[in-house]
Formats: sequence, C-alpha cells, structure tokens
Amino acid sequence: MASTAAACIFCKIIKGEIPCFKLFESERVLAFLDIQPLSRGHALVIPKYHGVRLTDIPDQDLHELLPVAKKIALAAGVSDFNILQNNGKIAHQVVEHVHVHMIPKPNETEGLTIGWPAKATDMDSLTALYNELKSKM
Amino acid sequence: MASTAAACIFCKIIKGEIPCFKLFESERVLAFLDIQPLSRGHALVIPKYHGVRLTDIPDQDLHELLPVAKKIALAAGVSDFNILQNNGKIAHQVVEHVHVHMIPKPNETEGLTIGWPAKATDMDSLTALYNELKSKM
Repeated sequence: MASTAAACIFCKIIKGEIPCFKLFESERVLAFLDIQPLSRGHALVIPKYHGVRLTDIPDQDLHELLPVAKKIALAAGVSDFNILQNNGKIAHQVVEHVHVHMIPKPNETEGLTIGWPAKATDMDSLTALYNELKSKM
Repeated sequence: MASTAAACIFCKIIKGEIPCFKLFESERVLAFLDIQPLSRGHALVIPKYHGVRLTDIPDQDLHELLPVAKKIALAAGVSDFNILQNNGKIAHQVVEHVHVHMIPKPNETEGLTIGWPAKATDMDSLTALYNELKSKM
C-alpha cells in the first residue's frame, strides 16, 4: 500500500487545506468528526505524523490517540462505543493515513457491526506461536 | 455494567493468579495472547488499572496501549490487522476490563469481519452536533 503525505487527504486536513469539523488539536494529534458517520458522534483521531499503518508511527505520536478518543466519548456522553483502527485494505482501511475511529454504538443497527469467527482453542499451536513471538520481542 | 477488580479475570491474570501467554509487561500495561483467537497472533493489550470502559481509565494508563499493540504486530510480522477496543455489551465487550485487541487479518475469512452501515452525509446535523461537542470539550 503506497502512500505519500503530499497526496494524503488527512495531511491536507492537518495543513488546513481541506476543512474539517475539528474537535481537538495538539502538537501531535488532530481529531474531527467523520463526515460519513456510522452513528451520531463518530469521530476520527489521527497522528499528524504521516504513516499508513500503526507500525509506521513512532511511539511518541501514538500516546495521545486513545486519551483523545476518550475525551470525545466523554464529551459526546456515549457509554457504549467501539474504538477501531484498521491497517491494510483487506482490514477495511480506506484512507492511507493512520486513524482511530471512535464509533458510538447506540443500538443494534447503528454503529459498527462485528463478525467474530473465533477459532477453537489449540494450546499446542498457541504455545509454539508464543515461543516464536517472545523470541522476537 | 457493574464490575469489581476482585472478580475480574484480567486482574487475576495481572496478579499471576491465572496463567497467560505473557508477551509484554511494564508498570502500567500487560499483553498476552488471546486464547480464543480470530487469527494467528491475535493478542490483547490491557492497562493494569481496572476499569470497564475506556472512559474509566486515567490518560497515563492509556498512553502505552497502542505502542505495545504495534510492538506485537511487528514481532508477529503482520502487515494487515485491526486494532479494536469494545465498550459495553452491545458493542461486543465480553470481559469487563478494558482490553485492546490486535487482530491480524491474513485473508478474507480469518480475523475480524466488519459491517459498515454508513449514514448519508447530512451537513446540517453534523454542524449542530459539532457545535454541541465543541462546547463540551
């Protein structure tokens, strides 16, 4: 998934070249309403640092994302909501600049709907995976 | 949604009373494999601070959650993945202690599946909502 900051719609919003319903701004983070919301209050929190995936963003530019999403949820007075951040087209990412969705879930039909195809627990596979991951962390 | 730390399965994992496939631990955060994964590498990152919803957690206990999720995605070598944090039963929350899922999306059938019932854009409603939220932030 290629991406350049120059062509990025979210970088244009950060620079003020495209307007937005700006809810919050700090040195490293911007938050605004999603204009194609899944529910009332659906907002986006983005790092100003341009990167396509979470794995492209320096830690210091990630710290504030969840606190700002929380701040918006509190301002919107929503109790039930989903935080979602998609990486890759197959994972439902559309804009190629990291963004965290705060999506209120007011009822069964509005907001995010989730499919949860859980696998059967396989302790042998999990143990092998665990040993592999631990060696890489 | 009531919850106490004493009865919380994730607090028992934090205290070491229940075992886990521990991937990362710091003063404020714990990460471990989900034992009912949606895909290979599905992991959970939790604050040690007990709270049901994102809105219950102090900011300082939220800062490290996304950097640790990123760290696990890098260790697992996954490119496409979803970060998901559910608040409330209607929003698909099961364990009543805040947890961030890192769910690899290796193909269409494995990993998270998402329904996206977007509303039609209504600039008048968005403007009214924006003015309301801005006044509360």
